[in-house]
Amino acid sequence: MINRALISVSDKTGIVDFAMQLQKMGVEIISTGGTAKLLRESGINAIDVSDVTGFPECLDGRVKTLHPVVHGGILAIRENQEHMQTLNELGITTIDMVIINLYPFKETILKEGVALEEAIENIDIGGPTMLRSAAKNYNDVTVIIDPSDYGRVLKELEVTGNTTLDTRYNLALKVFRHTSHYDAMIADYLGKDTTDYPQTITMTYEKVQDLRYGENPHQKAAFYREIGKQTGSLVEGKQLQGKELSFNNINDANGALELLKEFDEPTIVAVKHTNPCGVASATNIYEAYQKTYQADPVSIFGGIIAANDVIDVKTAEAMKDIFLEVIIAPGFTEAALEIFKSKKNIRLIQLENIKSTKRMDNDQKKVYGGILLQQKDGDLTEKLDVVTEKQPSTEEMEDLIFAFKVVKHMKSNAIAIVKNRQTLALGPGQTSRVWALENAINNTKHDLKGSVLASDAFFPFKDTVEVASRAGIISIIQPGGSMKDDESINECNANNISMIFTGTRHFKH
Amino acid sequence: MINRALISVSDKTGIVDFAMQLQKMGVEIISTGGTAKLLRESGINAIDVSDVTGFPECLDGRVKTLHPVVHGGILAIRENQEHMQTLNELGITTIDMVIINLYPFKETILKEGVALEEAIENIDIGGPTMLRSAAKNYNDVTVIIDPSDYGRVLKELEVTGNTTLDTRYNLALKVFRHTSHYDAMIADYLGKDTTDYPQTITMTYEKVQDLRYGENPHQKAAFYREIGKQTGSLVEGKQLQGKELSFNNINDANGALELLKEFDEPTIVAVKHTNPCGVASATNIYEAYQKTYQADPVSIFGGIIAANDVIDVKTAEAMKDIFLEVIIAPGFTEAALEIFKSKKNIRLIQLENIKSTKRMDNDQKKVYGGILLQQKDGDLTEKLDVVTEKQPSTEEMEDLIFAFKVVKHMKSNAIAIVKNRQTLALGPGQTSRVWALENAINNTKHDLKGSVLASDAFFPFKDTVEVASRAGIISIIQPGGSMKDDESINECNANNISMIFTGTRHFKH
Repeated sequence: MINRALISVSDKTGIVDFAMQLQKMGVEIISTGGTAKLLRESGINAIDVSDVTGFPECLDGRVKTLHPVVHGGILAIRENQEHMQTLNELGITTIDMVIINLYPFKETILKEGVALEEAIENIDIGGPTMLRSAAKNYNDVTVIIDPSDYGRVLKELEVTGNTTLDTRYNLALKVFRHTSHYDAMIADYLGKDTTDYPQTITMTYEKVQDLRYGENPHQKAAFYREIGKQTGSLVEGKQLQGKELSFNNINDANGALELLKEFDEPTIVAVKHTNPCGVASATNIYEAYQKTYQADPVSIFGGIIAANDVIDVKTAEAMKDIFLEVIIAPGFTEAALEIFKSKKNIRLIQLENIKSTKRMDNDQKKVYGGILLQQKDGDLTEKLDVVTEKQPSTEEMEDLIFAFKVVKHMKSNAIAIVKNRQTLALGPGQTSRVWALENAINNTKHDLKGSVLASDAFFPFKDTVEVASRAGIISIIQPGGSMKDDESINECNANNISMIFTGTRHFKH
Repeated sequence: MINRALISVSDKTGIVDFAMQLQKMGVEIISTGGTAKLLRESGINAIDVSDVTGFPECLDGRVKTLHPVVHGGILAIRENQEHMQTLNELGITTIDMVIINLYPFKETILKEGVALEEAIENIDIGGPTMLRSAAKNYNDVTVIIDPSDYGRVLKELEVTGNTTLDTRYNLALKVFRHTSHYDAMIADYLGKDTTDYPQTITMTYEKVQDLRYGENPHQKAAFYREIGKQTGSLVEGKQLQGKELSFNNINDANGALELLKEFDEPTIVAVKHTNPCGVASATNIYEAYQKTYQADPVSIFGGIIAANDVIDVKTAEAMKDIFLEVIIAPGFTEAALEIFKSKKNIRLIQLENIKSTKRMDNDQKKVYGGILLQQKDGDLTEKLDVVTEKQPSTEEMEDLIFAFKVVKHMKSNAIAIVKNRQTLALGPGQTSRVWALENAINNTKHDLKGSVLASDAFFPFKDTVEVASRAGIISIIQPGGSMKDDESINECNANNISMIFTGTRHFKH
């Protein structure tokens, strides 16, 4: 039986109707501050919590409900005679339902330029305490944090005069999901300038959408976002056309975006299975697309395209000729959007600040039973040391940097071969380095003469240089640091190849 | 100035000494229940919180400190004259330090067969509330949850009679990290039978170790474990020898373990860069290792080995001949351990329940600004439909299943070629399916005549069958489901190849 309910809500959606229904069922209503005022104005007979506790609301509302009369009323185990006798002796009446939502901490910290003091003042103390008390005692108490639960609770009350144990359990679960989320946001906010890995870490996200399925149709999946603005991330994108993004779309699009962010000049990235299959820069986005397409006109089929400049009508015309899953760009001209209307299935995503990123973001890898956390791979090169007799030309240097940007975002072991800011051959995801190169060479239809090569990690042996030389590669960029660097350098010198060491490895798995 | 401290700890490490020092500095000490008793027995003059509140501890301790005299004393802003006047009028004295740790919820739920009621009783209500009050008011109040902080707080008190604002801020951060962790554990526990993706999700982990670095030396990293037993996971392993596991070791070892768990018979998995480079089953682990080594004697160099049976001396002798990063097995004989002593750098991990796993575990992929959650890829095959005129023999069928298990754990697009339960050629991580096959064929030194092929996803065109046929493949396993399945089936029939559709795709990125 619900005899008394305590109501204190910052989100007042539906609360008047709900309280009215409770009152009609004979439930006594206790309330605080603004909620009490609203309820009374709406003709509901709300008792002030201070009249119940005999203690004034004080310290600008910092202390209102933190009182044994409230918490004894919530926490007493109804079937425990001793508990009930204690309540009786102390003059405490049970509280059977608690309807609360918390100070808007999230909304506060998301406001532009909010002061620390204002954030701190929006840390709710009394609210979470009542929620947690009521959730702990879900056996006897119904606790509601979400206005969307008013309806189903009312329905149950109408039928039996009480909620079911199952409902109360699920509402309690909802409370601890909410309080952990709330405190994780507070910890994130207070710890935003720390870079240590604390003894326990608690990461919280809010759902963007349930997904049709995961990497494969038999896996359930959902997409969540971090709290707060993540400029230049997919979650800030606006979908202009097409079906919902799939799990693999999001994963691939993320890979495409991360690589695209390495470039300032007009650039297109095409991704398949989280690896780039074509990347090119040019003086305008149309040319960049043409070069990306020509880089590998087969793999791009069914791929994800990310562009760092507005898609115009000419580029749209070219893109619509092949099957693409997703196109992401900072914008699309009206005429370009018109072109895509004939291809309803292409997902178009507008991401205005596509070049922005949070340099010191976190990366995670789930393993069974745990999780690996690391800083994102931010830096590109620590140095650019020419280690060979031959020096690369300015154009070669430009292509070497281009290739090193690409190889950084390929699955390891990886090799990228580039000419004129266009990928000509890509060898991702191999268990042997020289295979990555051999595969790249075997799989491409381009002539590699005069092109440059990037490797995501050092050469353990000179065989990679030997194979590169035979393919006509004229310059190489790699981290260096192998015991046998000298052999690779000698091999370069013997074949008139220039080589640069960056000091920065880019394994990615 | 610290005039009064409230102490209520379930972990009593160092508390007597700390309280003694506080008392010597003239700090008045308030306490509850067991803590008060201990302090008094140790000659510390601890005042009962009920003497402060004028309200009895009641409901079996469920209500002790939830009182405005306590929380007003913590939450009042000292420089706010109105707040201080209110305290004065209500007869409340400030509490300047709060030393609390919470009911052992984690320890309770980790006990074998613990009842829901016992878990619920160990949800602390008063403790988190005081911690959160004190942390909110860190400007005026010092809050300690961790006995390891007693020392540094005492040191500061000795110097200036108070803690620094910086220390109080960091202690407050620690509180919210702890309360979010605590409530996330409660939510996990209460929600352990749910499989939905809630509106907000909060995931909590405890640190296993800081790592030297992440995937690359310029990335900071740490390894965390989930709360509770994760049978058969790396975090349950016992390291018997060698250097600390690196980020890439853990990631690779996890990949090796996940694949190994597909097999019951004696099996060895070798992994490089998260892809298998050799897998073999045999009647004993020595033979399985020999076959794995011979599968690709080059890539295994510097690899991770996982074995599902005890490593004996003969196998150890064979393994020590090459450079291996990690060997994981359910056990090592004494004589085997003796062998490895001459190779101090090999990390040996004993994982007793190596075959165990949690079938419905979660998988995650971090993307910039958010996270993708999905159920782990559990099922192997939904069906085994022979779609060709030719039927595979029993031995071929065994190899097909073996190959499909391997390809499930390779990065997509992936092809695995197998004969006699030994991988002969592997093509992982390609943007084109036929390339995955061509690479596998080009990179192996084995004759593939009479071997079988597995593909992680369907064939978009018949070209994969054509290339397989030329290489001498006699049977194929793949999910099926392409628009052009018929062309692939016809191509098989024309070349006397059998083919099986599983209905289950295994993309992995």
